[in-house]
Amino acid sequence: MTPYIAEFVGTMILILLGDGVVANVNLNKSGMKGAGAVQITLAWGLAVLVPAFIFGAASGASFNPALTIALAADGSFAWSMVPGYIVAQLAGAFCGACLVYLLFKDQFDATEDASTKRGVFCTAPAVRNIPRNILSEAVGTFVLVFAIKGLAQVPDLADGTGKFLVFAIIVSVGMSLGGLTGYAINPARDLGPRLAHAVLPIQGKGSSDFGYGLVVPIVGPILGALAAVLVYGLIF
Amino acid sequence: MTPYIAEFVGTMILILLGDGVVANVNLNKSGMKGAGAVQITLAWGLAVLVPAFIFGAASGASFNPALTIALAADGSFAWSMVPGYIVAQLAGAFCGACLVYLLFKDQFDATEDASTKRGVFCTAPAVRNIPRNILSEAVGTFVLVFAIKGLAQVPDLADGTGKFLVFAIIVSVGMSLGGLTGYAINPARDLGPRLAHAVLPIQGKGSSDFGYGLVVPIVGPILGALAAVLVYGLIF
Amino acid sequence: MTPYIAEFVGTMILILLGDGVVANVNLNKSGMKGAGAVQITLAWGLAVLVPAFIFGAASGASFNPALTIALAADGSFAWSMVPGYIVAQLAGAFCGACLVYLLFKDQFDATEDASTKRGVFCTAPAVRNIPRNILSEAVGTFVLVFAIKGLAQVPDLADGTGKFLVFAIIVSVGMSLGGLTGYAINPARDLGPRLAHAVLPIQGKGSSDFGYGLVVPIVGPILGALAAVLVYGLIF
Amino acid sequence: MTPYIAEFVGTMILILLGDGVVANVNLNKSGMKGAGAVQITLAWGLAVLVPAFIFGAASGASFNPALTIALAADGSFAWSMVPGYIVAQLAGAFCGACLVYLLFKDQFDATEDASTKRGVFCTAPAVRNIPRNILSEAVGTFVLVFAIKGLAQVPDLADGTGKFLVFAIIVSVGMSLGGLTGYAINPARDLGPRLAHAVLPIQGKGSSDFGYGLVVPIVGPILGALAAVLVYGLIF
Repeated sequence: MTPYIAEFVGTMILILLGDGVVANVNLNKSGMKGAGAVQITLAWGLAVLVPAFIFGAASGASFNPALTIALAADGSFAWSMVPGYIVAQLAGAFCGACLVYLLFKDQFDATEDASTKRGVFCTAPAVRNIPRNILSEAVGTFVLVFAIKGLAQVPDLADGTGKFLVFAIIVSVGMSLGGLTGYAINPARDLGPRLAHAVLPIQGKGSSDFGYGLVVPIVGPILGALAAVLVYGLIF
Repeated sequence: MTPYIAEFVGTMILILLGDGVVANVNLNKSGMKGAGAVQITLAWGLAVLVPAFIFGAASGASFNPALTIALAADGSFAWSMVPGYIVAQLAGAFCGACLVYLLFKDQFDATEDASTKRGVFCTAPAVRNIPRNILSEAVGTFVLVFAIKGLAQVPDLADGTGKFLVFAIIVSVGMSLGGLTGYAINPARDLGPRLAHAVLPIQGKGSSDFGYGLVVPIVGPILGALAAVLVYGLIF
Repeated sequence: MTPYIAEFVGTMILILLGDGVVANVNLNKSGMKGAGAVQITLAWGLAVLVPAFIFGAASGASFNPALTIALAADGSFAWSMVPGYIVAQLAGAFCGACLVYLLFKDQFDATEDASTKRGVFCTAPAVRNIPRNILSEAVGTFVLVFAIKGLAQVPDLADGTGKFLVFAIIVSVGMSLGGLTGYAINPARDLGPRLAHAVLPIQGKGSSDFGYGLVVPIVGPILGALAAVLVYGLIF
Repeated sequence: MTPYIAEFVGTMILILLGDGVVANVNLNKSGMKGAGAVQITLAWGLAVLVPAFIFGAASGASFNPALTIALAADGSFAWSMVPGYIVAQLAGAFCGACLVYLLFKDQFDATEDASTKRGVFCTAPAVRNIPRNILSEAVGTFVLVFAIKGLAQVPDLADGTGKFLVFAIIVSVGMSLGGLTGYAINPARDLGPRLAHAVLPIQGKGSSDFGYGLVVPIVGPILGALAAVLVYGLIF
């Protein structure tokens, strides 16, 4: 398997499970409607953990253009592979979101509120304030990427245990900072499903809000990820 | 011990703990009524984890005809043992459900709603739509089986750590997709307890809904599991 | 350190953290009142995990007369040490409960309901039915002891990972069966704090209900634990 | 990197994530408002876990003056490094709290209640009773430090697994005792953010309550930590 296929399938599973939990908890006529933020944050951590252990050996299990770019800037990943990775991640995220729509079609149809429906696909700020929203995404992604780099500091870390630390990082960022902008912390996780939202024939779906989506969840994560590898390189 | 006994006892414990949490959280006069989907999904993960580490060495701890069939199709399990495994799994699930009824008899008697009572035993769709319900069960089981196969991708995975990854997979599927059809993702988990529901003298129990139960939670999981080993074989 | 001191201090910490969470979640004027069954069940698992890893090497970290007796019946623990262990466990549980009372004195004073106050110390059935309550405690303890024995089935289990499996067992029994009788699954966990309830000068405390406490949470766990080692010996 | 920088950056991340979850769950116009005590206690555990694995090798990942002092009293840390560690921890906690304010500025502005706002930064008692509040902080910190020392009792503990045990300790203390005084169990975790609260231009912020903050969350944790190393030395 090429690493591009691994990134594609892995990101598809990530979004199937990640967008899936938002649908599962927020849409009408889901049996788990109302389960709340604890379930959402734990399940997003698991949504990363599951494909991460399957595809870690094949591609490094990045699933995230901001991380991929930062690792290239850091010298630990080949720049020549970055475009292919990003295409695979975006395509995987798009397909994962389409699958969530197909699975939850009856629940989408039973839900009135357009922002709830869009919220299954992609992120939105609790208070719209573009500079601060970018800062929020940058800080969340800084923690993500800095901590992933920091896995190298754990002596003799078993690969399986390391996957659980990745799970812990994702859950931590979500539980502590997720209420600000929905913690995209990954441009593909937001843009891929946002494109799916734009093209899918969802009833009463409203705007896909690319004005927000092409700025905050792309610029913030990339800036935060680059800052993380820079700071990591300075102090370690 | 023969592996058949391991599958029988393991599946009984799985259903004791799995159907147990549904009774514990949903029936009237249970001290934990109302604990919600986080408890249900975590506890189903634990309901697999506990017998999985006890019986992993003895039988592989499948507890699931869809997984057993898929591993046979995959060449990693002997077809000759499949019938015995399935019988043991169904019998274990039936007995586990009977034990749950015996333990929660007073709570069943204090609960009016027939679908709540049946829901302790077996699954039901949030929106009845047989093709989409089958798809939901197939996708959930695909993730389950694909991820179990994917454990082989983790270098030097310790057996104990691997059991926690299995826990993570079950919780992930439940938290992200469980609101659609109650994530049977296992024909024995649904049919064994459904048979128990049919034969036990439960007050005001209503229909056992075999029209759904003989189709969706059997066909969906088997198709999803076969697709998982097929795709896994193609890309790894 | 003698193993008796380890059992004493370990059981004291177990009850400090275990009875602590019930006080923390259920008493008026606690900052976490209303956190619910997920917090209670997770925290009881942690209440076992923390002293288990500290005192595992020193005493085996039983903290539970039913487990101690069953391991002696099983031949894996010396009968001559059983009485000392049980005294240490009961004394530790009593002291832990006194410490919880001292810490939560203002919260106890702010709580009217006598059964809520007693419920911090010891267990009570959701529906009083002595034979079924005994069965509930027996089945919960069966799972506990059978699974602890079953740790031996995990190849090359690291001691640290094993402690997390013990945590998983406790949380599983609590989440799946705890709403029936409050899952004492340990005579010392119930009787030690019940004695503390009887002797402490708690305002408006009501009965300590020894009619229940001297029967169900003692007989049930011991029967369940003995059955577990018997069945384990038969099938493994 | 000097260990002082590690303590500074690590404590900053600890407070970013720890004070972050309180803001995330308690302030108006946060997308996760109302998520409750389970999220708060799990996220504080993760807030320790994440910097602990990154900086464990560099500085021991204390992040806590009470722990640092106790380890020095114990002979396992150099007294000469204690002042520098404490300064780094306080400065890191102060900076982390400022970052939380910057991120959640719009949410702070949307929140009326002054004690809710201060509660993002630092702890407060559920019932003000200075001697008992000190006891609460001392007991919580005793468990923390005693259990950290007790990690040495686990045979062949892998470093990664040990980090998860530290997570478990923090969550345990929070879930079981956190409703009393908000479990500072760390003078820097309370005083650093309290100083930030005092100097930041927060709208309608009310008192920083140094009358409480200079006593309970400093004296209690130091006494508890010293008692823990003393008792640990006596019985092990």
